[in-house]
Amino acid sequence: MSDAKVALPVVRRLPKYYRYLKELNLAGVKKVSSNELARLMGTTASQVRQDFNCFGGYGQQGVGYDVPNLLDELHQLLFHEEKLDAVLIGVGALGRAIAQWVSREAQGFRLVAAFDANPELFGQTICGTPILPVEQLSAFCAEHQPKVAVLCLPREPSRNLAPTLIECGIRGFMNFSHFDLSVGHPEIIVENVHLGDSLMSLGYRVREDIGD
Amino acid sequence: MSDAKVALPVVRRLPKYYRYLKELNLAGVKKVSSNELARLMGTTASQVRQDFNCFGGYGQQGVGYDVPNLLDELHQLLFHEEKLDAVLIGVGALGRAIAQWVSREAQGFRLVAAFDANPELFGQTICGTPILPVEQLSAFCAEHQPKVAVLCLPREPSRNLAPTLIECGIRGFMNFSHFDLSVGHPEIIVENVHLGDSLMSLGYRVREDIGD
Repeated sequence: MSDAKVALPVVRRLPKYYRYLKELNLAGVKKVSSNELARLMGTTASQVRQDFNCFGGYGQQGVGYDVPNLLDELHQLLFHEEKLDAVLIGVGALGRAIAQWVSREAQGFRLVAAFDANPELFGQTICGTPILPVEQLSAFCAEHQPKVAVLCLPREPSRNLAPTLIECGIRGFMNFSHFDLSVGHPEIIVENVHLGDSLMSLGYRVREDIGD
Repeated sequence: MSDAKVALPVVRRLPKYYRYLKELNLAGVKKVSSNELARLMGTTASQVRQDFNCFGGYGQQGVGYDVPNLLDELHQLLFHEEKLDAVLIGVGALGRAIAQWVSREAQGFRLVAAFDANPELFGQTICGTPILPVEQLSAFCAEHQPKVAVLCLPREPSRNLAPTLIECGIRGFMNFSHFDLSVGHPEIIVENVHLGDSLMSLGYRVREDIGD
């Protein structure tokens, strides 16, 4: 494992490699060549080899990659043993769905609290964590030091809360708020997720008949 | 408006243009240059001009783009007057959240029915549409001819249902099922949405401190 930081485009491909290797592993495939992996990923064999070289290789020339080993290495990379504590902000329909993802699917996180402005939700739990008044956010963060905030709020509250969250020690944002959150702090990691973009593209593609 | 089909990478950028132009319009900005738009989009002015040239231009040299006009043109492109009828399959937490998106945010769609395998949900409604037994899917599609299916199911049921849905006349899939649905029909449009990928990338980036 190299100590150099891995380039962002490579990082963004890791989850896709992980998903495809998981499928191959489920299907009982033991070895995969960079050519085969490239075909699945929609990329080139040279790109596949370069990507894995960022992490020290893993493959053997003429033999290919050992699927269970490579899957295990990627699992270590993506789902570190030490989970990242995350808070959910906004417990609407989307927030509830995402809470399930964070708690179950994305094994690298631990949901430690959820916050909302609706008093009817206070005292309830979501995925085993309490729903707290958003006014308690700063105090909670000061005490528990979560590292990640998942924003499932409309745009203005998200934008307004972001500086407070950064002051509270949040290092990474998962933003579902339908605008590109830009926090003006290069050290803060933001993943903007636009569900609406895929819906818009789909509608346009179906109407105009634009395939892959 | 040209009759030639627009390339997929351009189509994928349209929702982002739309979002940024909506922000500019909200802020009262009347004119935007291709340079300014490129900066917001994280691309080049030449790319911006090329992209809009696919649709017949819209800009004036030395003056830039008229924000309200361009927004209106993109709105026409993305949210066609004639809505696409869509069915939701899988009414779990994610399905419920997505139903709200399809009904409210993504104005190019009309949710006409939802399907689930859980008998407790039958007879209930979601976003004003009935939740029906999945066994009624074929009959419903034969009668109502929806064009889009939103899959909020685990992977195996999604994979198993896809051929039936294509036979029923579904032209576009919005797939949230945590695997890349590949239907083997080039004429069918598939948008695979991987919420988990962004979560995995975020975790890795926060741990390894990999900014934009």
